[in-house]
Amino acid sequence: MDYQDLVRDAMAAAVRSPLRGRVADYIPALAEADPAAFGMAIATVDGRVFGAGDWQQPFSVQSVSKLFTLALALAEGGDGLWTGVGREPSGNPFNSLVQLETEHGIPRNPFINAGALVVTDRLLELTGDAVGTVLDFLRAESGDPAVAVNRAVAASEAEHGHRNAAMAHFMAGYGNLRNPVEDVLTHYYAHCAIETSCRDLALAGLFLARHGVRTDGSRLLSRSEAKRINAVLLTCGTYDAAGEFAYRVGLPGKSGVGGGVLAVLPGRGTVCTWSPGLDAAGNSVLGVAALDALTTATGWSVF
Amino acid sequence: MDYQDLVRDAMAAAVRSPLRGRVADYIPALAEADPAAFGMAIATVDGRVFGAGDWQQPFSVQSVSKLFTLALALAEGGDGLWTGVGREPSGNPFNSLVQLETEHGIPRNPFINAGALVVTDRLLELTGDAVGTVLDFLRAESGDPAVAVNRAVAASEAEHGHRNAAMAHFMAGYGNLRNPVEDVLTHYYAHCAIETSCRDLALAGLFLARHGVRTDGSRLLSRSEAKRINAVLLTCGTYDAAGEFAYRVGLPGKSGVGGGVLAVLPGRGTVCTWSPGLDAAGNSVLGVAALDALTTATGWSVF
Amino acid sequence: MDYQDLVRDAMAAAVRSPLRGRVADYIPALAEADPAAFGMAIATVDGRVFGAGDWQQPFSVQSVSKLFTLALALAEGGDGLWTGVGREPSGNPFNSLVQLETEHGIPRNPFINAGALVVTDRLLELTGDAVGTVLDFLRAESGDPAVAVNRAVAASEAEHGHRNAAMAHFMAGYGNLRNPVEDVLTHYYAHCAIETSCRDLALAGLFLARHGVRTDGSRLLSRSEAKRINAVLLTCGTYDAAGEFAYRVGLPGKSGVGGGVLAVLPGRGTVCTWSPGLDAAGNSVLGVAALDALTTATGWSVF
Amino acid sequence: MDYQDLVRDAMAAAVRSPLRGRVADYIPALAEADPAAFGMAIATVDGRVFGAGDWQQPFSVQSVSKLFTLALALAEGGDGLWTGVGREPSGNPFNSLVQLETEHGIPRNPFINAGALVVTDRLLELTGDAVGTVLDFLRAESGDPAVAVNRAVAASEAEHGHRNAAMAHFMAGYGNLRNPVEDVLTHYYAHCAIETSCRDLALAGLFLARHGVRTDGSRLLSRSEAKRINAVLLTCGTYDAAGEFAYRVGLPGKSGVGGGVLAVLPGRGTVCTWSPGLDAAGNSVLGVAALDALTTATGWSVF
Repeated sequence: MDYQDLVRDAMAAAVRSPLRGRVADYIPALAEADPAAFGMAIATVDGRVFGAGDWQQPFSVQSVSKLFTLALALAEGGDGLWTGVGREPSGNPFNSLVQLETEHGIPRNPFINAGALVVTDRLLELTGDAVGTVLDFLRAESGDPAVAVNRAVAASEAEHGHRNAAMAHFMAGYGNLRNPVEDVLTHYYAHCAIETSCRDLALAGLFLARHGVRTDGSRLLSRSEAKRINAVLLTCGTYDAAGEFAYRVGLPGKSGVGGGVLAVLPGRGTVCTWSPGLDAAGNSVLGVAALDALTTATGWSVF
Repeated sequence: MDYQDLVRDAMAAAVRSPLRGRVADYIPALAEADPAAFGMAIATVDGRVFGAGDWQQPFSVQSVSKLFTLALALAEGGDGLWTGVGREPSGNPFNSLVQLETEHGIPRNPFINAGALVVTDRLLELTGDAVGTVLDFLRAESGDPAVAVNRAVAASEAEHGHRNAAMAHFMAGYGNLRNPVEDVLTHYYAHCAIETSCRDLALAGLFLARHGVRTDGSRLLSRSEAKRINAVLLTCGTYDAAGEFAYRVGLPGKSGVGGGVLAVLPGRGTVCTWSPGLDAAGNSVLGVAALDALTTATGWSVF
Repeated sequence: MDYQDLVRDAMAAAVRSPLRGRVADYIPALAEADPAAFGMAIATVDGRVFGAGDWQQPFSVQSVSKLFTLALALAEGGDGLWTGVGREPSGNPFNSLVQLETEHGIPRNPFINAGALVVTDRLLELTGDAVGTVLDFLRAESGDPAVAVNRAVAASEAEHGHRNAAMAHFMAGYGNLRNPVEDVLTHYYAHCAIETSCRDLALAGLFLARHGVRTDGSRLLSRSEAKRINAVLLTCGTYDAAGEFAYRVGLPGKSGVGGGVLAVLPGRGTVCTWSPGLDAAGNSVLGVAALDALTTATGWSVF
Repeated sequence: MDYQDLVRDAMAAAVRSPLRGRVADYIPALAEADPAAFGMAIATVDGRVFGAGDWQQPFSVQSVSKLFTLALALAEGGDGLWTGVGREPSGNPFNSLVQLETEHGIPRNPFINAGALVVTDRLLELTGDAVGTVLDFLRAESGDPAVAVNRAVAASEAEHGHRNAAMAHFMAGYGNLRNPVEDVLTHYYAHCAIETSCRDLALAGLFLARHGVRTDGSRLLSRSEAKRINAVLLTCGTYDAAGEFAYRVGLPGKSGVGGGVLAVLPGRGTVCTWSPGLDAAGNSVLGVAALDALTTATGWSVF
């Protein structure tokens, strides 16, 4: 199978539609992203990677980082994580406080903001440096030492982050944070502000396609935990459009408002796309379209 | 692969745990079910079927019927269905009215009660006889002419069905039902009160494993629509425990409070289990445990 | 004090503003109301009544009837009523189902639709004829034998009443109705469809100004129960604008979407206004304005 | 009328019931309050004050301070306040975030915590020193220079104040705070931690009985604004039990979890009670019982 051609064809199919979406503009640093940017990479379980377009250009990973904090918190601390965060779809916007109040400060899943704050809190508790742990992992798996936090973006997130602060304080009020609210927010904003490329993310996500095994052959997670993460990705990974994504793409995946989407083909590889224009649910328009085209052409789907 | 042994081993593994759950008792007819009943069947895409335990004993299919009403409504009427019902997880109990109010009478998905009422309404509109259409389909796919509605159960559901009536009237108030509320409820209670066996349900579900193709080789649904149903099953098919089911079993599936669970292995076959004891989310304890054991032993999982 | 002049001055002040609101149009029978109609009456505890404009013209009392069903249910059955309906403001639209679900089928107060359905149910249980009991009371207190139900309006309400039916079924599901849902709805629609005039309503409401004593000197309610009703009127009587009404008018009052408002001056008398144009909260624009002008001119206010 | 006797009789009636409630224990400083403490004072519009029991002992005013911040913010800034906070009952617990989310960061009324934070924010903006403004007012009206903030209580509130911080950040995210969140919280905790006595509070509240006029004869608020505050007190002043308080006491009033209750008799005077044992809604058990007894004995009630 010529992966290079697959990537090119999927991208070509995606741009055929005139829809481009809107670049996230809730913070200035993201609003400056080039709406025409578009990249895509496929990585295979044997470590090869193929790409096209802006596939090597770093972008703000935003919520895609939550896949890695989750995996690392489970790797470091095990199943105990699930006492503080659920594994069910939320049925509510990613930053809603309503369900958090109804369910006593336990977020529905690790990919809504509240849940990701809990995961960050635990990873911070376990390692002493949540964002450093994520950076080390991304650099090791991608072989790219340049993966880094954009401090301006992190600062901008913090400045506009009243709702995240609200959720963190709210959960702290229920005793569901173990570090000071400020520290949790700092690490959360930092890992969301990591910048890296489709290439790097596709490589870094391969442990999920390998059922828990890292690039160096060591085991990060049990097969069961890797399956768990894939399940949560499929049901909760793409904001309030997980059902739609499951239908169109049919793969576990995680999106971010920076325009990145990382999808997993269990046993086979990963696909990462990037284009900053977002749909109403916050998922990259071209990215999802390319994944749709790719999975339709290849039959890659878990269903 | 010896499917017969797989079934026996999975059932043996399930009963090893002392957990049995509670039989549904919201209507007398269901409360009488034997808590020790337990059956399991595997059907393969080539039409073979294997089972053990009470796999040929009819039971009340309840919400498992919603898988078939959905497929038949899509087969008869196509995509227009999705204007009246969503495809996203609800994050709320299956019979909640809250989300229905917030979202203007459009249920979140076809498997919560409100969504199933809309699907029943459309199938009734398209065919003139929703429950008859389901019965015909189940009989044809299973080759079992004895599949039938238990009228006593249907009557009992109607008698205790104030909440379903509330939801139906509520949606009618938003113009989201096309038939009189009473008619929709009658057909809804009737198809939920269908009684059939693990054997029959496993065979009747094979069209989803065959990507839309019926037992007689004719196409019921496009490959895309079959994929859609599998996606909705995975994200919404097991009440408010879809994430948990996706993790433990890793297959699209639909459960009912009669104790049945029907799961799909795309491209390969189906598995149906039945045991009336339910967990807190309303899913069969032994049924899910057997599916867990089976998929763990075989590696069958979409992830 | 020249009450006749007070009424004329208050009406004149009200029409000085150009605001007229919108006539309720959710059922055709109400939509036909003349938006220019405007009447006002003052009744004093000694039984005199003064009016101007269309103060003797019958109109659809709608929710104003809920004041009388509440008083009569308390008079017939006593405090037990409060186990099935609360006495606190709802903070939600009058026909919302959300709070009903959160609070297990017990409506917040007797003046939101759900609460009024419970009151109707209890009055029906206590008397065998809820609407007849209300009619008898209105006729006796007003001395007007012509007070009657407009059957066409009642039928139209029933036809468009899916949401009320939803609430009734929902509460029945919680065991909070003692009569069949259909019967409760029939009596509810009937008493809402009663037609009578400002004059009659002002006279019929005097028992609240007389701390529970009827026109014939007999006691309908204890002083304490009359105070209770006034308190609930003040906090809950004007839909989701009770705070605004308490500020502008400062009197306990009940409004209806037919455009009527009945207000109580404890110890002194009652005021009833009617004009079909409604504000966004469902209260009569001219009616509230006239009450505002009257209470500002006279200093009549409980505060 | 012998006010001294009235106070004594009301207190005697209150203690006849064995119910005492529970002292607030969400912060240690409040949990230390003596559950047997009980005081009551009546102040008349001509400036006389009568009391019994612990009526001169300072206690933590907590939410009773919100009455004064509201009056002072209106006095300083006028009606503009109402663009940032509503005037309707909330129908939700005093510290709920749900409604705040549904209604886009505008709290329902000035007496739920979120609304009080907005009022504090505006008073801080208008005066540069919210808590200082409140202290000056209380000292001037009561003639007691010893009214002061208990810094330990304020610090303890801040330490346990994650939910208030959550609400403040949440509203800041909607642009509904004009000062930094930290500053608003500091002033909020400080004015809640003011300590003063029934005597002082009764005197300080007289401006509401005098329709807006202070002890020195100057006008703090227009008659209309004073009426507004009384209306909001009646509908929203006693947490989620305003309907119950309106019924039992029948007066505008504000309670605090320190056990204080300040009630207003428009045109006549004020009553302040204090006893730390609270009912489930957060209102003083003995305090409300004494007000109930007093108003029953005297007929003082707005209804």
